[in-house]
Amino acid sequence: MKEERLVTRITPKSEDFSRWYVDLIRRAELADYAPMKGMMVIRPYGYAIWENIQRLLDRRLKASGHVNAYFPVFIPESFLRKEMEHLKGFAPEVAWVTHGGEDELEERLAVRPTSEAIIGHMYSKWIQSWRDLPLLINQWANVVRWEKVTRPFLRTTEFLWQEGHTAHETFEEAQEETLRILEIYREFVETELAIPVLYGRKTDREKFAGAEATYAIEALMSDGKALQMGTSHNLGQHFARVFDIKFEDRNQKLQYVWQTSWGVSTRLIGALVMSHGDDSGLVFPPRVAPIQVIIVPISVGNWKESVLPLACKLRDSLQQAGCRVHLDDRTEYTPGWKFSEWEMRGVPLRLEIGPRDVRNNQVIVVRRESQEKTALGMEGVEERVKEMLAAIQKSLFQRALTFQKENTREAESYEEFKKTVEEKRGFIRALWCGREDCEAKIKEETMATIRVIPLDQDKDLSGRCVCCGQEARTLAYFARAY
Amino acid sequence: MKEERLVTRITPKSEDFSRWYVDLIRRAELADYAPMKGMMVIRPYGYAIWENIQRLLDRRLKASGHVNAYFPVFIPESFLRKEMEHLKGFAPEVAWVTHGGEDELEERLAVRPTSEAIIGHMYSKWIQSWRDLPLLINQWANVVRWEKVTRPFLRTTEFLWQEGHTAHETFEEAQEETLRILEIYREFVETELAIPVLYGRKTDREKFAGAEATYAIEALMSDGKALQMGTSHNLGQHFARVFDIKFEDRNQKLQYVWQTSWGVSTRLIGALVMSHGDDSGLVFPPRVAPIQVIIVPISVGNWKESVLPLACKLRDSLQQAGCRVHLDDRTEYTPGWKFSEWEMRGVPLRLEIGPRDVRNNQVIVVRRESQEKTALGMEGVEERVKEMLAAIQKSLFQRALTFQKENTREAESYEEFKKTVEEKRGFIRALWCGREDCEAKIKEETMATIRVIPLDQDKDLSGRCVCCGQEARTLAYFARAY
Repeated sequence: MKEERLVTRITPKSEDFSRWYVDLIRRAELADYAPMKGMMVIRPYGYAIWENIQRLLDRRLKASGHVNAYFPVFIPESFLRKEMEHLKGFAPEVAWVTHGGEDELEERLAVRPTSEAIIGHMYSKWIQSWRDLPLLINQWANVVRWEKVTRPFLRTTEFLWQEGHTAHETFEEAQEETLRILEIYREFVETELAIPVLYGRKTDREKFAGAEATYAIEALMSDGKALQMGTSHNLGQHFARVFDIKFEDRNQKLQYVWQTSWGVSTRLIGALVMSHGDDSGLVFPPRVAPIQVIIVPISVGNWKESVLPLACKLRDSLQQAGCRVHLDDRTEYTPGWKFSEWEMRGVPLRLEIGPRDVRNNQVIVVRRESQEKTALGMEGVEERVKEMLAAIQKSLFQRALTFQKENTREAESYEEFKKTVEEKRGFIRALWCGREDCEAKIKEETMATIRVIPLDQDKDLSGRCVCCGQEARTLAYFARAY
Repeated sequence: MKEERLVTRITPKSEDFSRWYVDLIRRAELADYAPMKGMMVIRPYGYAIWENIQRLLDRRLKASGHVNAYFPVFIPESFLRKEMEHLKGFAPEVAWVTHGGEDELEERLAVRPTSEAIIGHMYSKWIQSWRDLPLLINQWANVVRWEKVTRPFLRTTEFLWQEGHTAHETFEEAQEETLRILEIYREFVETELAIPVLYGRKTDREKFAGAEATYAIEALMSDGKALQMGTSHNLGQHFARVFDIKFEDRNQKLQYVWQTSWGVSTRLIGALVMSHGDDSGLVFPPRVAPIQVIIVPISVGNWKESVLPLACKLRDSLQQAGCRVHLDDRTEYTPGWKFSEWEMRGVPLRLEIGPRDVRNNQVIVVRRESQEKTALGMEGVEERVKEMLAAIQKSLFQRALTFQKENTREAESYEEFKKTVEEKRGFIRALWCGREDCEAKIKEETMATIRVIPLDQDKDLSGRCVCCGQEARTLAYFARAY
């Protein structure tokens, strides 16, 4: 038995959310700290979630016409310097390679913090004509950003992500792509991760360094703080001008291409923990859970002869039916220990089989998210299990949606706004004059930022900015955020 | 139309193999040079092969009990220094990160050339008892080795690979794992890439820096040079001692674990090009081909009304049947241009449909590897296409196997050995005394190295070393290699 298993206690969520989060990630073996500041190791149980995320999102990206490629991890410093806004945005976070073997390099190489610059350079070679457009490339890769304050999955010096980079003939097409991806992200996160999101545009202050406009999906974690879950940028022609990405259009005229870029990262794993987890530990939605069904044989009497063969048969038939199932037949742990272990690790369904169940040709099923316990006859158990997994997925989404709705509040005055942020957290829906002054003041005084500006606003919007009282230009969702 | 398409001619393979290789990779859009020395971009058509390789190998690794994880891309210099052989082996090839943002780091970080050191450190934290063993972890990742002479896919500063790292209770178990993986690699490469390999142990001179013993699979490229396709190392307790990876064994005694590590890389894509390609371009085995079937409609007369609908239907039904199929319905290229384009890009099967085929309810099928042309009735065409793909896979393997056998020669004297290397290339099967002197002399004088020492040797081996004439200790396969 591992020593740490014996000694580590998980801080209850209600006691200290931050400690609970970190304790749980290590105790459940999702990730561990690496010996280098701010870096982590994604352990097999955590990486299995990433593999599920990759598979489910990659399928959507391919179905919408995107293809994968791989660009170098190093970017020459001069490339980053070409787009000043981009450089300013990323320079403080760049890890620099200065030596190759024994030799000092003539030019420093950035370990990619994002790949617009190197991809822009390649696109200028690959794109000649409108026939080469749209170019719809995605990359699954590691990136490095030298962060001062880090937290596993949410903000680490290195993380894994996908970054899409597309080039189009017109602004309209690029804008359409930007919003198409935003919608793919929304649908993906809500369907597969069971996390409801708000979506919309970021303010200029919060947008990507070098973008024309940034769009994002944002979710509310169960401590009432918001988390940015994915971003989609309309890059306009900024990078095209800098990297000279021109094409001959349908009228034989040379034009700069219009670009987008977009990404989601291993941060999504942190979101799963913080959205669904409880005092007993992780709660994974079945569609991304590494293990969907855990079978625990009740090890009494001659269980190895009576119970175990049936448990094995059950595992095989569930596997056959397409479930990710694991049979915990270890002899060094008691059934009770296993119950709480797999509960802590967030497995959606637990199946218990003891001698009595064998006699009754049944199995006891316990749902992780509701603790609901049912006896199921062995006949057709595979179908029932699959139905229950679907029900759990739905229930988790509904629960998170209810939480989100209950924690999205209106604020009509600045006093009300400040009080709500301080006492209740959550999203605040309020009017804004659109000036960066107010945005900055709100951030300074309340630590709340504008998370998104909703896309479809009432054209007849009227009212006063929640901060300055001047005429409002837009509705916005505010929150304290990770 | 892309300019480069108009101007680039591929050097014939028979004229200059090296140029042919590089021309083809760029012209077929498998990869392109990056602006940093020795680095490449893997373009979507090349990356699709890597995705197929990943899927097909990952399935085998998981079926044999391995799980995936992700370790940091940076490794502190002090970690590499702990194992001196390992450091000596890799130090000249390491890219060093010295700055994070504006700050100089206290300790340089290596961009991982391989991950034994960081994984060893983590394993020392995770492994306590024999119950934690075996630990069977694999990682799909990028690695960097500062190479002086590079060539796309074969040797680049950055490449993609998988690296397995396992820990076991006994030497025997580690050895069993080392050979199990060697066999998985052999079966995978022969089945999926249709490349026959020799396999066996490496000499001490050629083994991995820090390993007890290295095993490899080696294939013969069609220019008669050998290529190492994958390696599997028994690491003994070297890294366990250095990183203090101890476990309590079944008798409550503390022991060091026994480890293995093993990997294959994007080099396999280069092997596909060099094994199967011909003067007309690439020839991909169907099981890893990005596109298995290309449909070219014969664009004459009112083809858009008569031919195209049937071509679309054919595409859909082949897709439905599980084929990777693409319909080239571009109007700006002639059918003839498309034939040679997709031939050059190595698509195993071409389906042509013209007005006459529509009338006869048939399709013309052309096999890339043999240029064999057949008319197939539309009835049951999906099954016939799948049979033909299987036949092509088999035929490519057989052809490569014949080539390998015809180019594996015995040498009984050093004169014969030198003559064969110089005039014929290929593998040379010869006796060796086992001394590094002879190995070094052969390399210096002939540029041939020992590729592998076969595992199962006749116990009654007798004869003389092909180099020094002293009593032979073993049989070995020699070749000039990439």
